[in-house]
Amino acid sequence: MTDATAFDAVLAAISFNADGLVPAIAQAEGTGEVLMMAWMNREAVVETLTTGRVCYWSRSRRGLWRKGESSGQVQMLKDFRVDCDGDTLLLIVEQQGVACHTGRRSCFYRAWRDGTLETIQEVETDPSVLYGTPHTHGA
Amino acid sequence: MTDATAFDAVLAAISFNADGLVPAIAQAEGTGEVLMMAWMNREAVVETLTTGRVCYWSRSRRGLWRKGESSGQVQMLKDFRVDCDGDTLLLIVEQQGVACHTGRRSCFYRAWRDGTLETIQEVETDPSVLYGTPHTHGA
Repeated sequence: MTDATAFDAVLAAISFNADGLVPAIAQAEGTGEVLMMAWMNREAVVETLTTGRVCYWSRSRRGLWRKGESSGQVQMLKDFRVDCDGDTLLLIVEQQGVACHTGRRSCFYRAWRDGTLETIQEVETDPSVLYGTPHTHGA
Repeated sequence: MTDATAFDAVLAAISFNADGLVPAIAQAEGTGEVLMMAWMNREAVVETLTTGRVCYWSRSRRGLWRKGESSGQVQMLKDFRVDCDGDTLLLIVEQQGVACHTGRRSCFYRAWRDGTLETIQEVETDPSVLYGTPHTHGA
């Protein structure tokens, strides 16, 4: 068990929504690439700050989502930032491998081009290498 | 009125939540600094893609929020990206002035340091210059 009392001040600064969640943006240290956005509950915040390894809350699986636990796509926390009104987090991370479950570096690989969404980032890692079987996003 | 039919494909690729909203991250072109996160509804997406100027949905004011309309903190859209499962947007923007209502470049100016949240970015523009009167975040 983690001693949550050490985190009272930061938890008080975060406005969790009605479901007890806050959106967390992951940005790659160094390149500044925005990798993904997922959600955290209080427990995920405390675990992430305690271990230095990013842990989200999976809304689909309704459980803590230790990023990379099955896929190896681990994110090590380099900085933890809170926005002006406390309702969004920004995590600066060292991403091991690719962030996206499709095998791309970033989840934001589709861009508006001439009226359609175009894929602007290629697959770097075969998803079957990451997961063995077809997989959906943890969020 | 904007012809929304031209945007059917992109709107279909976006998973709006039960409130009809999707989170949108604004990232500064060039520096890559993550500036803020706010929300968009279908109308805000269409207006943003049509005008090239970022328009959010203000949950507090329950209306379209043309960023910078009163403060001059306009964001010009440089790229519009959609994540793998369509439930988050990434806007690459040219930010005029500062993004945060506190007068800081980014809303993410507080960082976890030695067990507390420390302010790591100073005020660049006096908020009274931006708004004249005390102002709260549009989100």
